[in-house]
Amino acid sequence: MSIMAPAADKKLTGLVAATFTPITSQGEINLSVIGPYIDYLKEKQGVNNVFVNGTTGESMSLSVEERKLLAEEWCRKAKGKMDQVIVHVGCLSLKDTQELAHHAAQIEADGIAVIAPSFFKPSSADVLRTFLQEVASTAPTLPFYYYHVPSVTGVNVNVRELIEGIEKVIPSFRGVKFSGSDLMDLGQCISYIPPHWSVLYGIDEQLLGALVMGVHGAVGSTYNYVGCHVNKLISAFETGDLVQARTIQVLLISLPLLCFDVGVNKQLMNELSGLDLGPPRLPVMTCPAARALAIKQKYDSIFPE
Amino acid sequence: MSIMAPAADKKLTGLVAATFTPITSQGEINLSVIGPYIDYLKEKQGVNNVFVNGTTGESMSLSVEERKLLAEEWCRKAKGKMDQVIVHVGCLSLKDTQELAHHAAQIEADGIAVIAPSFFKPSSADVLRTFLQEVASTAPTLPFYYYHVPSVTGVNVNVRELIEGIEKVIPSFRGVKFSGSDLMDLGQCISYIPPHWSVLYGIDEQLLGALVMGVHGAVGSTYNYVGCHVNKLISAFETGDLVQARTIQVLLISLPLLCFDVGVNKQLMNELSGLDLGPPRLPVMTCPAARALAIKQKYDSIFPE
Amino acid sequence: MSIMAPAADKKLTGLVAATFTPITSQGEINLSVIGPYIDYLKEKQGVNNVFVNGTTGESMSLSVEERKLLAEEWCRKAKGKMDQVIVHVGCLSLKDTQELAHHAAQIEADGIAVIAPSFFKPSSADVLRTFLQEVASTAPTLPFYYYHVPSVTGVNVNVRELIEGIEKVIPSFRGVKFSGSDLMDLGQCISYIPPHWSVLYGIDEQLLGALVMGVHGAVGSTYNYVGCHVNKLISAFETGDLVQARTIQVLLISLPLLCFDVGVNKQLMNELSGLDLGPPRLPVMTCPAARALAIKQKYDSIFPE
Amino acid sequence: MSIMAPAADKKLTGLVAATFTPITSQGEINLSVIGPYIDYLKEKQGVNNVFVNGTTGESMSLSVEERKLLAEEWCRKAKGKMDQVIVHVGCLSLKDTQELAHHAAQIEADGIAVIAPSFFKPSSADVLRTFLQEVASTAPTLPFYYYHVPSVTGVNVNVRELIEGIEKVIPSFRGVKFSGSDLMDLGQCISYIPPHWSVLYGIDEQLLGALVMGVHGAVGSTYNYVGCHVNKLISAFETGDLVQARTIQVLLISLPLLCFDVGVNKQLMNELSGLDLGPPRLPVMTCPAARALAIKQKYDSIFPE
Repeated sequence: MSIMAPAADKKLTGLVAATFTPITSQGEINLSVIGPYIDYLKEKQGVNNVFVNGTTGESMSLSVEERKLLAEEWCRKAKGKMDQVIVHVGCLSLKDTQELAHHAAQIEADGIAVIAPSFFKPSSADVLRTFLQEVASTAPTLPFYYYHVPSVTGVNVNVRELIEGIEKVIPSFRGVKFSGSDLMDLGQCISYIPPHWSVLYGIDEQLLGALVMGVHGAVGSTYNYVGCHVNKLISAFETGDLVQARTIQVLLISLPLLCFDVGVNKQLMNELSGLDLGPPRLPVMTCPAARALAIKQKYDSIFPE
Repeated sequence: MSIMAPAADKKLTGLVAATFTPITSQGEINLSVIGPYIDYLKEKQGVNNVFVNGTTGESMSLSVEERKLLAEEWCRKAKGKMDQVIVHVGCLSLKDTQELAHHAAQIEADGIAVIAPSFFKPSSADVLRTFLQEVASTAPTLPFYYYHVPSVTGVNVNVRELIEGIEKVIPSFRGVKFSGSDLMDLGQCISYIPPHWSVLYGIDEQLLGALVMGVHGAVGSTYNYVGCHVNKLISAFETGDLVQARTIQVLLISLPLLCFDVGVNKQLMNELSGLDLGPPRLPVMTCPAARALAIKQKYDSIFPE
Repeated sequence: MSIMAPAADKKLTGLVAATFTPITSQGEINLSVIGPYIDYLKEKQGVNNVFVNGTTGESMSLSVEERKLLAEEWCRKAKGKMDQVIVHVGCLSLKDTQELAHHAAQIEADGIAVIAPSFFKPSSADVLRTFLQEVASTAPTLPFYYYHVPSVTGVNVNVRELIEGIEKVIPSFRGVKFSGSDLMDLGQCISYIPPHWSVLYGIDEQLLGALVMGVHGAVGSTYNYVGCHVNKLISAFETGDLVQARTIQVLLISLPLLCFDVGVNKQLMNELSGLDLGPPRLPVMTCPAARALAIKQKYDSIFPE
Repeated sequence: MSIMAPAADKKLTGLVAATFTPITSQGEINLSVIGPYIDYLKEKQGVNNVFVNGTTGESMSLSVEERKLLAEEWCRKAKGKMDQVIVHVGCLSLKDTQELAHHAAQIEADGIAVIAPSFFKPSSADVLRTFLQEVASTAPTLPFYYYHVPSVTGVNVNVRELIEGIEKVIPSFRGVKFSGSDLMDLGQCISYIPPHWSVLYGIDEQLLGALVMGVHGAVGSTYNYVGCHVNKLISAFETGDLVQARTIQVLLISLPLLCFDVGVNKQLMNELSGLDLGPPRLPVMTCPAARALAIKQKYDSIFPE
């Protein structure tokens, strides 16, 4: 094996849960819940991969030190249970991002992902590629994914343009978490990439439209609690039962309307999973109790037990 | 038949070409090309429905009188050849829109469509519904379609909310030309509507994603010249050959990149069809010859004869 | 006088009221109110110029014929009373715009103004200049103003770039109704233009900031009913009493918050002036009575009699 | 003195330079330049206040540790030379922001400023106020300023609404660095605040428009190298010489056009000051040499020696 080749070079496919960050009622990170959280995902939802410290995990509201502690605990507890733990290491600061990438390699994560910096926005695909390259070079043995979420970052770089020849500057590049609604760009990415890369779709309510375009998997926050249903959607799609796939997708569509807000989403997860993941962090607000109840009732009407 | 029921109440499905407006070199509308244009669509592209005086037809750059003359000629020449001629009658002015709707009924169009007014934007779905209702009531016998194109109008009304109970105020309502990228809203519309309504998708490069969500047809400008390919895509999809459908979709994706601009798009149509549809109108600019040539060459590389 | 020179070449300065369009309760234009309206503006508000058929006048919701009738009546009734009647002739359609420009010359308006077409947006300053040129050439004897309102049109052309050398292609060009918040562009325009052109500012709540940059006048909808106060603001500014000017500006700032919506604005004018200008037109909604009352009370608290 | 009262409670007025962060050619922070930088600002530009670790300082591209080292050096070297050193402590993470606020109190900064978190955006003025309150409470003795820059953060909270009653939850609140173009909101803020608070304007090219509305000072990046000219603008304004003030403002307007990009701006500062502040950090790109030269020549044509 070349020393530059990613250690865990297994193509990332299927369902990936973008995990919430467990927080105590005092507002500190709560590592003790991570073990049971992993068991819940695997046993109740059939989810075998996690995307840690991403948007759902409110990583931008965590300190660098907190992110390290969380990533470490996720990797330790997931060993032998999850197929892959992808650690998101993106920060506004390149230095911090590099530090987290280096750390992810030390704790033997299965891959790292990096979001576009969103305060100073890269002025072109070239600039973004250079930024990503500076991160990847500090963890050259880890599979590297670009996390594309233009509605949040405001960075509307064309992904197809970004990945043109990217393997030459980032040999560890392995794919994209594509959380944009532009299926045209998505389709062009899929038709461009080599077989061992992955495009994972990240807008849960449009998954079926992305599957038909050929994505290799899905990363999302709702998969924390509806993973079992989405696995059925994917199976139906793969066996050619589009009617069944569509029926599930339409049911799932009602959910994001309820919980686009991370605080609401986290509260719904708490109620559905029975885990205590705690509240979100400012500037995300805790979901008011009355609203949480109403959403739980709506959920139960969509997915009656 | 109830006097309020649309006369030509045949569900609109399949491929619909959003037609260009033929213009002479002096800048006047050119009715003489419409007959050959219809033959071309039917014979060379397998297109059996047209959407006239829409965005592709630059209707907003035409006078009310010009739009009447065009609609009339399209209806006359399409008789016995096309399945349906849908006339877009939307203007910024409600009065003008009503006048065109009334006229469309007189010339026996098969349906009318109305875009959201985009200068003063409706402040809610309710206001837009009221505006549409005022138009529909002047042509109650014609099937009525809402033309949703938020990227152009800036009117981001949720379509599912708009059509909630709309049949009570617009008995002639028959569906939506949905030219938005929000597949979540699209999916909710499709699961809501009665069987005799239609949702037709309008973003050509994402058609496959919409088909899997269950749309009943497609309206677009590129179907003027790649209709025959898109018919194959639809057939492949319907027979469950998703690999083939995706292969065609990926080829087609390259096109809109080339011709999002109406002027370029029209020029490409001129070259591919051999028809003389003339230049666009200001503020759309004529495609420079060098660029037209480059695009034609790109097209030929995508779809070699 | 050169045959190409505008007939009424008097520099436009001071306060200009952007007029509402009188509508009957049946929804038709109401020419009979225009005479009293002019008297009210002159006598009660000290306003000596009007900007007719603009955004405040909901011209985009009027037919071409209605706009002609209105323009004609404004010009006829204003003769000998108002200094200048500027007729806004912009439409989405160049043909309609040219027809209205030609008509404005026939009825001896003092000038015409044209907004950027906002459905198909000009792709550059050059394209917009060409569009304006095509209009101006049909009424070469009338002073010509570009109406810049990017927040409404979405056309963010840099005005300084637009007017670079514009007199060569539009000899009748005389200035800009600048309704943008970019004081940088405004300042560059003012320092560029020749002495006989005018830059008139169109964001009422920021007028003082524009005056200090050197604008020659102001065009706005609130000047219909607070013109007398704004004249005091301008006088205070001109005599160097910035404290007094700022005091009035701060009072005036409260108003637009109340009436950014044309329907509410028109209702406030009805109540303050005692004129019956009627309701707005769809898609602008009539102001509910309760809200109208609340706004009137707020107004009275700001400007007690 | 109450234990909750800010230690250095001196109203912040006049010109404040938003400082660049000195970086070595190896990309590390370069503390050694800060002393000479302060002397330059004071002696050559007549600037007596600095705003450290803000947008110009690329603080979002620095680690928390780097920000501490920089803040400390600025406070140490400015003692006895600058009137006030305001340290910007805003980060995406509340924890990091609190840590920096606490540190700023330890190093005896004259005040702290906090930008709105821009990844997860506060959903209302209330949420933003709560976030700011959590920061201010960790440094209750330091004058606290909200840094409003909606074009960068995408957080368009109305400042007037934000500061309503804010002294009850943030007793140390002392004002706003207002870097928005909405002079209406600005005017309302100025008319609301008590006499010992400050509103400092942050859009350099519109300063004159803000001065006439009553701002107490200005914070900006161009003041690093045109501070001496802006001091003349402010003097002219204060003595009522608006023509002179406007003349300088129009000259200054040409600058931001050249250097909106932080990389270009920093390079211009390097050339004009003779200091070696180094390159920017990714994702901001270094200004190419040819462009730097062209900008310097343009500068020299605007402000010949």
